[in-house]
Formats: sequence, C-alpha cells, structure tokens
Amino acid sequence: MKRNIYLKKKTLAEAKEIVSSKLAHLIHLGTEVIPVTRSQGRITAEPVFARISSPPFHCAAMDGIAIKAENTFGATEESPKSLRINKEAFFINTGNPIPQGTDSVIMIEDVHILDSDKVEIRVAAYPWQHVRAIGEDVIATEMVFSENHQITPYDVGALLAGGHKEVKVRKRPRILIVPTGSELREPDQVDFNKSSAVTGIIESNSYVLSGLIVGDGGDPIRHSIVEDDPKKIEEVLLSNFKTADIILIIAGSSAGSEDYTRSIIDESGEVFVHGISIMPGKPTLIGRFKDRPIIGIPGYPVSAVIAYEELVKPLLHQSLHLMKSERPKIKAIPTRKLPSKLGTEEFLRVKIGKVGEKFFATPLPRGSGMITSLTQADGIIRIPALSEGLNENEVTEVELLKPLNEIANTVVMVGSHDLTLDLLANLLGKYYPPIFLSSHSVGSLGGILAIKNGNCHMAGSHLLDPETGTYNFPYIHTYLSGVEVKVIHLVFREQGLIIQRGNPRKIKGLEDLLRKEVNFINRQKGSGTRILLDHTLKNLSLDSNQIRGYEKEEFTHMAVASTVASGVADAGLGILSAAKAMNLDFISIAKERYDVIIPSIYFEDEKVQKVIEAIRSDEFKRMVSQMGGYDVSRTGEELT
Amino acid sequence: MKRNIYLKKKTLAEAKEIVSSKLAHLIHLGTEVIPVTRSQGRITAEPVFARISSPPFHCAAMDGIAIKAENTFGATEESPKSLRINKEAFFINTGNPIPQGTDSVIMIEDVHILDSDKVEIRVAAYPWQHVRAIGEDVIATEMVFSENHQITPYDVGALLAGGHKEVKVRKRPRILIVPTGSELREPDQVDFNKSSAVTGIIESNSYVLSGLIVGDGGDPIRHSIVEDDPKKIEEVLLSNFKTADIILIIAGSSAGSEDYTRSIIDESGEVFVHGISIMPGKPTLIGRFKDRPIIGIPGYPVSAVIAYEELVKPLLHQSLHLMKSERPKIKAIPTRKLPSKLGTEEFLRVKIGKVGEKFFATPLPRGSGMITSLTQADGIIRIPALSEGLNENEVTEVELLKPLNEIANTVVMVGSHDLTLDLLANLLGKYYPPIFLSSHSVGSLGGILAIKNGNCHMAGSHLLDPETGTYNFPYIHTYLSGVEVKVIHLVFREQGLIIQRGNPRKIKGLEDLLRKEVNFINRQKGSGTRILLDHTLKNLSLDSNQIRGYEKEEFTHMAVASTVASGVADAGLGILSAAKAMNLDFISIAKERYDVIIPSIYFEDEKVQKVIEAIRSDEFKRMVSQMGGYDVSRTGEELT
Repeated sequence: MKRNIYLKKKTLAEAKEIVSSKLAHLIHLGTEVIPVTRSQGRITAEPVFARISSPPFHCAAMDGIAIKAENTFGATEESPKSLRINKEAFFINTGNPIPQGTDSVIMIEDVHILDSDKVEIRVAAYPWQHVRAIGEDVIATEMVFSENHQITPYDVGALLAGGHKEVKVRKRPRILIVPTGSELREPDQVDFNKSSAVTGIIESNSYVLSGLIVGDGGDPIRHSIVEDDPKKIEEVLLSNFKTADIILIIAGSSAGSEDYTRSIIDESGEVFVHGISIMPGKPTLIGRFKDRPIIGIPGYPVSAVIAYEELVKPLLHQSLHLMKSERPKIKAIPTRKLPSKLGTEEFLRVKIGKVGEKFFATPLPRGSGMITSLTQADGIIRIPALSEGLNENEVTEVELLKPLNEIANTVVMVGSHDLTLDLLANLLGKYYPPIFLSSHSVGSLGGILAIKNGNCHMAGSHLLDPETGTYNFPYIHTYLSGVEVKVIHLVFREQGLIIQRGNPRKIKGLEDLLRKEVNFINRQKGSGTRILLDHTLKNLSLDSNQIRGYEKEEFTHMAVASTVASGVADAGLGILSAAKAMNLDFISIAKERYDVIIPSIYFEDEKVQKVIEAIRSDEFKRMVSQMGGYDVSRTGEELT
Repeated sequence: MKRNIYLKKKTLAEAKEIVSSKLAHLIHLGTEVIPVTRSQGRITAEPVFARISSPPFHCAAMDGIAIKAENTFGATEESPKSLRINKEAFFINTGNPIPQGTDSVIMIEDVHILDSDKVEIRVAAYPWQHVRAIGEDVIATEMVFSENHQITPYDVGALLAGGHKEVKVRKRPRILIVPTGSELREPDQVDFNKSSAVTGIIESNSYVLSGLIVGDGGDPIRHSIVEDDPKKIEEVLLSNFKTADIILIIAGSSAGSEDYTRSIIDESGEVFVHGISIMPGKPTLIGRFKDRPIIGIPGYPVSAVIAYEELVKPLLHQSLHLMKSERPKIKAIPTRKLPSKLGTEEFLRVKIGKVGEKFFATPLPRGSGMITSLTQADGIIRIPALSEGLNENEVTEVELLKPLNEIANTVVMVGSHDLTLDLLANLLGKYYPPIFLSSHSVGSLGGILAIKNGNCHMAGSHLLDPETGTYNFPYIHTYLSGVEVKVIHLVFREQGLIIQRGNPRKIKGLEDLLRKEVNFINRQKGSGTRILLDHTLKNLSLDSNQIRGYEKEEFTHMAVASTVASGVADAGLGILSAAKAMNLDFISIAKERYDVIIPSIYFEDEKVQKVIEAIRSDEFKRMVSQMGGYDVSRTGEELT
C-alpha cells in the first residue's frame, strides 16, 4: 500500500508567506462594467473621475425666491424693498437651478407677497446666501475613487452624483470547490425522515465555505462530490481548473491511504506545503495545479473553516487588493487551564461570558469534527506554537466571532444540564433586545464552584444531600460560605434508568446493572445525577465496582441517552425527558428538585431579572409540562 | 401660502424611543421556508431541533482497520496478534461506519499486512480508539438553534449535519422607498455625456438607502421619483403601503412650502415626530400611514443616511430581533477646534490619521448636501446636544466607518493641494497591503504647522520666500526649528491665471484683474498660491484692494477652476493641470517647486517609504507628465 507522508510541516506564518508569494501572482482577475446601483461591495478596477459636478449647477438650498443680492441691499423692517415677480424675484424650490442673473435665495418664510406681481423683502440678502454652488460636493474631472477601492452604499451616491451610471470593477474571484470522499452524501440525496437511511456523512463543508466566500467577495462554484478515486479527482480538476481563479479540494490531503490530492497535484503542478503545524487544520495542502492556485482543505469541518480563514481568505483579499480583515479582540480570563501541544498553533473555540466587569472564556470541545464548537463559539483563542497552554486565570486575547453587545447581553449559567434550559433560552430570545442564555454543562457541583470563582451569573443544581435528604442548600452552605445567593426553583424532574426501547435486557432496577451482560454509561463526577446514583446504590448496598461501564462518563443527559440509543450502552441514569426525546424506555428512580442559584450581586441585574421573568411565565411552564417528566407546580418560587 | 411648521423638536433619544415603542409593534413579518444552503444571514422563525445525530453512526476517525478492541488486548512488539481480514479486521476509511461488532479503529500506519487474509497488530487498541461516536457533534432531538437566531455560514454546516435541508426563517422586512421632488432625475434618464443636459438633481438617496437596507437584512422596494404634488404622493402611498413593512418617503418633510409629507400622513395616519434636534437630519418625520410605520427621510444625502442609520436601521433590527449593531470606537484628537450648536446633536464626519501612536481627527465639510463628506470619512464624532463643541486637542470618541488597519495603513499628508496627489494615492493602492494616502488641503503653511503639531506624516508645500526667491526651506527654518525633517521634491508646476475658455474678458495678465468687469476668485491665506499671488502683485505694484473678488477664497485649485468654469468668476490663480481638467484657458505666471516635507522620525516608516518609492517610480512620472503643466525632471530627489 502506497504510503503518503507529510512534507516537513510548515508553521502557519510560513504557509501564509508562501500563499502570498507563490499563489497570489497566479490570480489574474478580469474586469467588468456593471450598473452603479448594483456595485456595492465591488472593487474599482480603475480610478473613477467625476464626469459632472454635483450639484451640476448653482441651486437653491431652500424653498424661496431667487434674487440678485445687490437688489436687496439696504432693505430693513423700516424700509422694505419690493421686487417684481419673475423679473427680479423668482419662486424656487430646493434643488432647482437659480435663474441666470440671480445669485442668492431668500427663504419663503422671509418673503412677503404683496400681490401677484410683487414681493417685499425686509432684510438684505448677501450674495450666495442659501445657494449650493456648482461642484460644492463633487467637481467634474476630480478623482472620486481610486483604483482598488471597495464601493460602499454611500459611494453609490457619490458615483451617481459624479455622473456615473456604470462602473468598471474587478470580477469576483471564482473559487472552485471540489468535495471528495466516498463516504460523503449530497444533502439532497439523503432522506432525513428515516434516520436509519443515513448511511454516509452529509457533505456540508462546501456549503459552509461557499457562504464564507460570498461574504468575502468571491464567487463560489461548487462541484458535486467526487469519490475517492484518483483518476476521477484528476479528471474533475483537469476539466474544471480553467473556470476558476482558485481551486479548493476538500479532504484527501491528509496522510491516509485514500488521500490522493498530493500525488495528483505533484503530477500536474507543484506542492509547496503539505501539513501545517496548526490545530485544527494540520492536513492542509498548498500548491499549484497547472497555473492555478490550489489549496487542499482538510475534511473535518472545523479544520476546513480554519484552513479557509487563515489561508484562502487572505489570498482572496490579496487578489482583490482588500486589506486583510481583522476580528475585534478582547481580553478574557480562561475558566480552566488550557493545555496545548507545544509546536502546534491551536485555535481554541470558546464561549465568552461577561460577568461583572470581567470577560471569562470557557473552552468548547476541541475536536476538529465538531462544527457546533464553531456555531456555539463567541470567540477564538490562538495558543501560539511555542506555548504549552494557558493557566486558569491567565488573561488572554480572544478574537470575537460575535458582536460584543451580544456577549454582554448573555446570561452565563454554569452547572447541571437540563433540557428545559433550551426552552428557557428560546423564550429569552423573544425579548427585545434579546437576552442570550449560555449554559455550560459541568455538573451541579461545577456550577456551585463557578459561583464561588465569580465566573457565572447563575448555576443550575440538583444536589441531593444524602444526610438530610434535602437539595442544594447544604452544598451552598458548605461551598459558598460568605457568598450571598438567592435560589429560584426551576422544576421537579424524574430521574431514572434510560434503557433501550422494548427493554431487551429485561432491566427492572439498579440491581440489574450488576449483571455481566449489562453495559452502563455513567455521568461525570460532581454531577447531581452521579451523586444521586452513588447515594441510591449505597442505600441499596450495591457495589459500583461490579457495574460494567461505571467508569465511562458523559456530560449531559442527552449524551447518555444517545449512547444508549446507539447500542453502546444498555442503561444510563438520566431524566425522563431525555429518554422521551430519543424514544427510549425509562424506569423511574427518583423525583428530584432542580434549582437555579443566583449570587445576590447579580440578582437585580436587568438580564438576570428577565431570566426569572421567563421562568415564571405561563408559556415556559406550559412548554415544560408538554415535554413530560417535569412537575412545574412550584416553578419560579424563591426558596429559602 | 400654507405654512408648515415643525412640531416641537424631539431629541434623538426621544425619537428612538418613539420608534421602538410606537412603530416596532406595527411590523408583523411573515415566515418562509428556504433551503438551508441559501439561508445565510437569515433569522430562524422557530427553534430548530436536530433531526438526526452527527455523525449519524459510529464512524472511523482515521483510515485503518475496524476491530473489536478486546481482540487486540495483550498485543506487543514481541507478541503480535494476527486478525483475519473481513472477519476480525475490516479495512475502513475516515467517515465510514464501523461494522457491527467492532468498537475501535487502528490507523493504517500501524497495521502490518501479512497476506490477503491476515493482518498483524503490535499494539493493543483501546475501545473507541479513533472512532467518532454517534452524536459526538449533534445529538438528534437537541435544539441546534433557538428562534430569532441569525444563521451564519458555520451554522449552515450544523443545520445540514442535523438533518435539515430547509429552514423556516422570518421574511425580510420589505422597505418601500419613495423619493419625492420635482427637481429630481432618474439616473437612467440623464445623459451624462452632455454636462449641460443635466438640468436636475440626480436621485441617488434611494439607491444609497437600498444598499444600506440590503446590508442590514431588509428588502428594499424602490418606487420611481414622485413629483412635488400632494395628490400624487398620497396616491403612491395609498396604492403601495400594503406591499411594505416600513415606508420611507424621501424629502418633503422639512418646513418648506412644497413639503407635503406631514399633511398627507396627518390625513391617513398619525405624525409622532416632526423635527429632531440632530444635524444633519433635522427634518425627519416619524409616523404611521394607515397601519404601517412611515419615516420621512430628509432629502440631503448626509441627512438621509443619518436618519436611516439612527432610526430605520434600529427598527429593522428590532423587527428581526437582531441586536443593535455598534460601530467600533477609538479615541482621537481633533486637529482643530470643533464648535457645535448647543441643543443639537451633531454627527461630524472626520478623517482619522494615525501618526505615531496617536489618532488625529480632522473634520470634513459639515454640509448635509455633501455625500463626499461621508464617502471620505473614516469616522463620525457625535457632539452631544448639551455641548458647544470640542477644543483642539480634547480627546474624543470616534465611531469608525473604516477598519482600523486601513486607517493605520494610511499616510496622512497635510498642506498644499496638487492634482498629482490623486495619481500618487492611486499608485499606492496597488501595493499589497495597499497604502492609503489621505491628503488634507489646508495650504502650504497649514501643512508646515501640522508637522509642528505632530499630526501628519508629511506636508506638501510650494512656499516661495519673496526675500530670497527660494522655496520652502526658509519657512522650514522659521516654523520648524527643532524639528528634523527631510525634503523630497515632488514636481515643478506651472501656476497662472485660469480663465474662461476663449478668454471673453480678454485677460492678458495680472494687471487685468484690476479692471472693474473682471471677477476674481482667490485662494485662502497661507496657501502657497496666495503667497505667490501677493508676491507677484507686489512686484508689479498692483493694489489687491482693487481686485473684485480678492476676498472670496477657495481651498483647492480645482475649486478655483470650477468657480471660473461656472461663470461666477472670470479668473483665478491656479495650476495648469486644473485649467486643463476643466477645459479652461490658462495664462502662465510662474513655474514653482512643490516639495514634500517629511519629519525624520517618520522617514523610515514603511508606508512613508512606499510613498517615496511611488514618487520615484517611472509610472508616476509618466502619468504626471501626461497631465500637462508639470516638469518631473527632478521628481523624487532628496533636497537639502
């Protein structure tokens, strides 16, 4: 089997330099003449000189009469002057040319009409009063815009005013996108109504990249999926490369056995870079196919986006002569240690929360296959290649993916996971301005610690105290001494065993988890559900060491349910609504209380109050009841 | 004549509050179902739940073989294990489902193929190694996006991965734009080839607003121009209002005699606001026409933009449930005093220059008719109603209209105006990243003072010292003692009298300016041209008091030429190239030296060096020569 080994990996800076020096000059954008009224966002291909002046003549700046100023000299309240209409005084409206021989306009409010022939003036006018002189805004022949200028909506006004109906602009760079991979399916060809019918991976990268390309001023041309067959891939490139200014070939550029991109490019061009020391995005390839720039984009969705944004977007901008676009940046504090591999520049997606006056950054999953780590991200932390990561509380720079006022309008909730939080988030989005709810599932105890550390507005918790049989307050007393908090009750919910539909393993209760053939999936330590499990096992004198899978942890109820649904586990402890959502069976174990703990200093905060308002709304209670597995009889009560 | 008087003017904050409370609830956007692949930028009309998990099955994260991990337990270099192909080991590529009964993938690099039936393993695999579990990214039934979420290109990936081909989004707000005014002309109906044929004002506001609306997520519907006839305007509104979610009626809302908007709305709805204490933008009207929000947009282009951005855009965003967008802000220092009217909130357009580590803001013309004050602006300073303005050097906040890196890449040139500076700016735009040249025409002496004040990178100057007959250096010695500078020669150029084509006044030289029937247009004090004029008049013993128009000043050669071309003046002193550009006659008076003065501290600055490089380029010299009136024989030399 032919091995495919990376060239010596390049740093991102080296790769960018190669794109700029070896690829940019391969792009020769043509020009086209388009109507000015549709030119917004386009780039001028030559300097634009005004063809006419604006205003094109001396014109009235007010409604009134046009006169010759010297005919009014000496006019006062005591000795008014009268002027003959249509001989010395001409009624005129704003924007109209002043008649030959006049040089001034008197506002209609200051004109006294004597009769149909005469008007009277009681204040002298000065020359050029209320007159917009020809060329006041734009002078004919002057340069209005230079070459390589990006046309804004304002500019459309200046172009029209300068006498241009059309403008010569650079054509948009055409970017051919070729997704490859035999495992891929065209979205149109998948029947999403039958989950089981989905036998491949839905090809979405090309659509994500197309969207980004349009936003960056390019013209994406998507090719249909090409299977992992070097002949076919080569054929597609050979018959399409001339239609493109830049070629992106998705997947097939890593070091696997079915990764043919490199050898195809070696054949018909040149590979400059294969492998970049970034994460995600390592298996990126930079080369030339015939005389066209080609970039091999990794197949994992986050890698694809990073490779595009770091390499293709700058190339696109350079070909259009646009400045590199830069994301706004802020300083934020990581909520936990962020180790990173030495020698690799890492692009870490984070949620950002503004709590008090500080911004906190919580990392999202790092996997390059997780598109949701991008869609949920508020920002990106770049951890340089020469760093081994960041410590908790080490202030760092974050590039923003979302507007700062959206982040500032976000309530940060850390702690236990519950499905009703999605409903709550949805309700909050209906306010104007919308309130965003960002919830991080770290378990109930994690939430209480986040309050202690001051990096959340509220925590969701359902911690049972085995000693007293009460919820949350014992933990608050233990962990939050000195922190004043309020507790708002959210829901009672049913916890139980989530098991496969039809219960093929004939599970009846927790004691069945000890059976050899039963695979369990657990929740992480510190989660309320884990504490409930351990407490109940102890009460029943069951030994957790005998449970197969006890050590395998998931972080949310849905992840547990999903693991059961996939057949990897036979049972997991979780809430009824999660079992219902995945169409699984359920054996009730306990009814527990889920509360929201709010530090008093944030309790009066406007957005926190909106959250409480939403919790107390009839709409929320109605929607929660409809989910099943919840009791909303005391929802919204403040507990003490 | 019926008078039209403003209602009591509202502050901008009051007007915004009225828009939010009285107009927003009139808008009821419908929904539509569109393909996900074209949903970028749209707003979800309902929460979106995943229909399938992503990945939809356990799949290989690497190319290799899928196996059951326990079959490899104990494998080492010394005691390898062999597995039967297609029974215990299954070749698999990234993204493909792992076969039933397997739970782990071994990378192809670690697989040793013994023969066509068997492979050998030398390291044990652990369960779920190199496997992407079902639902790792998206779990079926979970909420992927809430209602009122704006879909990004990344989100398109998550929607497809979650099994959605279509998505229900809010319809775009339809915004009817009705330009009114008998003086207006449709761009299509004007023949720009004959300047004299332009007898009206080109209607551009509706196109500028359309562009802004598209960028803000709305759907502009432009109506053709309606003349100043209340019946016709009313007719247009009555027959079109139902097609729109918001109506914008341009012009006709000030207090002039032909301003009918208010009475029309009074008739069929309600006027909430007429007149806002802002500048530009005062004659703005806010009301309801039948059951639709209507905003009367002032007719002057800058006023129209301000009214749109301050009132319509927030309304549009509110109707879509988008956060209000905020421009990035920086702190800058005004280069001169900025007085402002008490009681009026002023939107001052400024050029921003980064010189050294400081940002300087130079005001652009304040006229609300000057669209170029927006197209050239880098930012906007809001001077609050309760302020009488800003002092020179009083640090103030500027809202940015251009990216900060573009501003940072701008060379700030202050001083004398010359037409070759446009050519230079154009050449600089061809570098990558482009260098921008921002030139402020304040006259030669103004440029030298700007160097003294540290707020420019270079100054253009052609100051003749009457004593010695030399250029620039005597002034540098006088005004810039203690400031080390370098001087790069730009061009020699011809100064002379710019006169009307065919010379109807039979002007032969400066002495003719004293004739009664000759109207002169002067340049401002401190400009090199003014000094040249005064010097030459003195040499010829001509009395400037006898020149009609000596006191009327323009700031650029082109403005002088334009004034002559319009017939307002018969002659002005200026450069040959300006006369040529306006197709005027010219009487040469002097050949003068125009130099660029650069403080030594900025001389080595990369972008300043690019300017010098461009000045010395053959292309620049060639283009300047082609303009006529210039001598480039010593262009680019450093003078001492």
